[in-house]
Order: sequence, then C-alpha cells, then structure tokens
Amino acid sequence: MSLVRVPNFSISLDGFGTGDGQTRDEPFGHAGERLHEWMFDTRWGHAMQGRPGGSRGVDDAFTRQHDPGIGAEIMGAGKFGHPGWEDDPDWKGAWGPNPPFHTPVFVLTHHTRSSIEMEGGTTYHFIDASPAEALETAREAANGKDVRLGGGPTVIRDFVAAGLVDHMHIVVVPILLGRGVRLWDGMEGLENDYAIEATSSPSGVTHVTFTRGGV
Amino acid sequence: MSLVRVPNFSISLDGFGTGDGQTRDEPFGHAGERLHEWMFDTRWGHAMQGRPGGSRGVDDAFTRQHDPGIGAEIMGAGKFGHPGWEDDPDWKGAWGPNPPFHTPVFVLTHHTRSSIEMEGGTTYHFIDASPAEALETAREAANGKDVRLGGGPTVIRDFVAAGLVDHMHIVVVPILLGRGVRLWDGMEGLENDYAIEATSSPSGVTHVTFTRGGV
Repeated sequence: MSLVRVPNFSISLDGFGTGDGQTRDEPFGHAGERLHEWMFDTRWGHAMQGRPGGSRGVDDAFTRQHDPGIGAEIMGAGKFGHPGWEDDPDWKGAWGPNPPFHTPVFVLTHHTRSSIEMEGGTTYHFIDASPAEALETAREAANGKDVRLGGGPTVIRDFVAAGLVDHMHIVVVPILLGRGVRLWDGMEGLENDYAIEATSSPSGVTHVTFTRGGV
Repeated sequence: MSLVRVPNFSISLDGFGTGDGQTRDEPFGHAGERLHEWMFDTRWGHAMQGRPGGSRGVDDAFTRQHDPGIGAEIMGAGKFGHPGWEDDPDWKGAWGPNPPFHTPVFVLTHHTRSSIEMEGGTTYHFIDASPAEALETAREAANGKDVRLGGGPTVIRDFVAAGLVDHMHIVVVPILLGRGVRLWDGMEGLENDYAIEATSSPSGVTHVTFTRGGV
C-alpha cells in the first residue's frame, strides 16, 4: 500500500510553517533557521552537513523516517524556490546540486518547465495539477513506494482538505513567530479522522503525529 | 515576591482558547468541554466533582498548582459569564454558588456593579481598569500571595503584552477547533523573555510552561 506521508514538518508554537518575508537569502523569512535547528542538531542532521556527532534521541529517531520507503516527493513552488524563481530560467531549486530527495520530485506550479535532472537521483518535474492529479502522477513514479508530501504549509493544507494524507509528523518548535503562513487553517475536526499522538523531546520541540484511521 | 501566574489554561492544537458561538449553555462555544476533559479526568478534577478516582500522573500534578499560594484572581468578563450577562442584574457568575476560586476575584468589565460574596471564600469584584491597574488592585487583595490570571485568551494576551505575566502553564489539547478566540496572536518573540518547556502526557495533551527570566 502506497501511503502519503508528511515527515518532519516544523511549525512554531503559534502554528506558522514559514515566516514572513521570504527571499532567496531567507527562504523561511523572518523565521530564519529557527524552525529547523532541532533537526540540524540530530545525528541525521549532522550527517547531512557532513559532520560527525549529533543527538541520538527521539528527534533523531523521527528525522530518520524522512527517506526510507519513499519513492517520490510532491512539493509546493515555495519549497522549490524563493518568490519569483519562475522568472529565472536557470533556477535549479533551493536545495543545491545534490538535493536531499534522491527520487523524482513533483513541483506544483502554474509555470511549468522542462524536467531537471540533478545529482544523487533527484529529478525535478513541474506540474500544474490538482492535489489528486498530482498524487496520481507521483504515485506512478513512486512505483509502489510511499509519496512524501514535502510542504510548504499551503500544500499540506490543500492535500489534507482533499483527504489525501495518511500520516503527518508535525514538529512544534517553542518559538512564537507571530506572522507568516499558518499550517492549521481550515482543519477543524481533524481529530475525527486521525489518531493524534504528542511526544515532547528534551530538545524542547514536541513531535505530533497524525495517523489516518485504518492506515 | 508576589507573582502573576496563569495555571491550567487549555487551548486547541490550532491555538484557540475558546470556541466559536459562546452561549449560557455552551460557555466555550462549539468547543464544548473538549478543552477541559484532560482536567476532569485527573484525581484533582474528580475531587472537584465530588467523585473518587482519577489519574495521578503529570496532568494531575499540574492541576494541583491551581490553588496553593494564590491570594486573588483576575478574570475577563467572558469567564464570569456568557455574552450579555451584564444585562442581568441577578447574574452571579458561571461558577455556581461555591466557585472554585476561594479568594477575591476581580472581574474586568466596562459594566461594573456591586461586589458579590459567594460561598467558600470567593468574592467577586467588578472593575473597569487597565491590566496594570487591575493587577495593582488584585495584588493588594492577595496580601503578599500570587495573583492568578484566569483568562480568557484575550485577557491573557493583554497582560502578556503589558509585560505583567511571570508564569504561564498552557495545555495543548490534540483537537483542531478551526475557529474561536486565539491565544497566541501578537506574541511574536515571546521566547526571548521566557524559558519555555514542553511535557507531553499519556493523556494526549502537552503541558507548555513559560517562566519569565529572573523569576
């Protein structure tokens, strides 16, 4: 069974998945890197940066679910690049020459372009599609494996609203951003469809998992 | 040192401290009692309802900080009663003949009236005052003890914005209300002034404590 999973999606205590004022230099706006420091501090995060060490506790255990079993990713245009990247024909994404996806990645955008093959197994495809259509395409590419829904917050909301998400792992970081893009808008009653579990970590973050009934 | 403390204040995962559509029968609107079931299930909560039993874990430990060391409470008009109570000269609050406060309680309202003495040591006083003025009055009545800030969300926000809150205990309940009154609005950067700690409970809620630097 090929599931749709949201792993390691960080929000502030007041529910913002990205800050205000996103730019090329500050892809999370005024949030900077504060939503993701917990991840960089894990052993998994250190390895991604080519460094030894890092924590081996609950944060690390969660981060390690990012890749195994994933056959494709769907991401929003805002995760692929800063506002305006569509006007730059040479833009190859905000994730470097060897992006941390290693599968086909479907970028949702109204400005489609030719696919881009990167190092390490990532190929970016650009599609202008509804959540259900995008999932059908990504699932085919995933070849029986799960599909990762990579965010941002707007994309996650749209897929949840369409009833397409099987599992979400949301990480609540103890900062108050005050402004940005909210994750939770329009999710009233989500607890009726998902089993919700919260696990606080010594690092200060709380891991909140949502598992759809029957999955 | 007399502190200002917010104990046991429950919000939904999406940050609402009360639901939409508050009435006399549904003081928390469409949230019903869902924000407070965790509290009713503790041994402390059972005792308040005159019942034996109840959980003795982390939820119970937190609830028990509601009363000790408190000399007065400040509450908003919306905690004292449903919208429109001001037009009912006989209204004596939403908390029964023996309210669970047992100290002077200062109700913030633009419609002041004479004080009301209840059973069990609670006396309601009605004041039309700024947060700082209300605190000065309550602190005098507390006679060296701490002042409890009882909510609702708007009152807590106003006192935090005025820099008057020393300790907050916020309980995040794993439900998505979608609408109501938000707690977190306008609290950007609060982590700079408070040490924040999160503790998840087997009941599903997460206790988030804020302790002001130097307190």
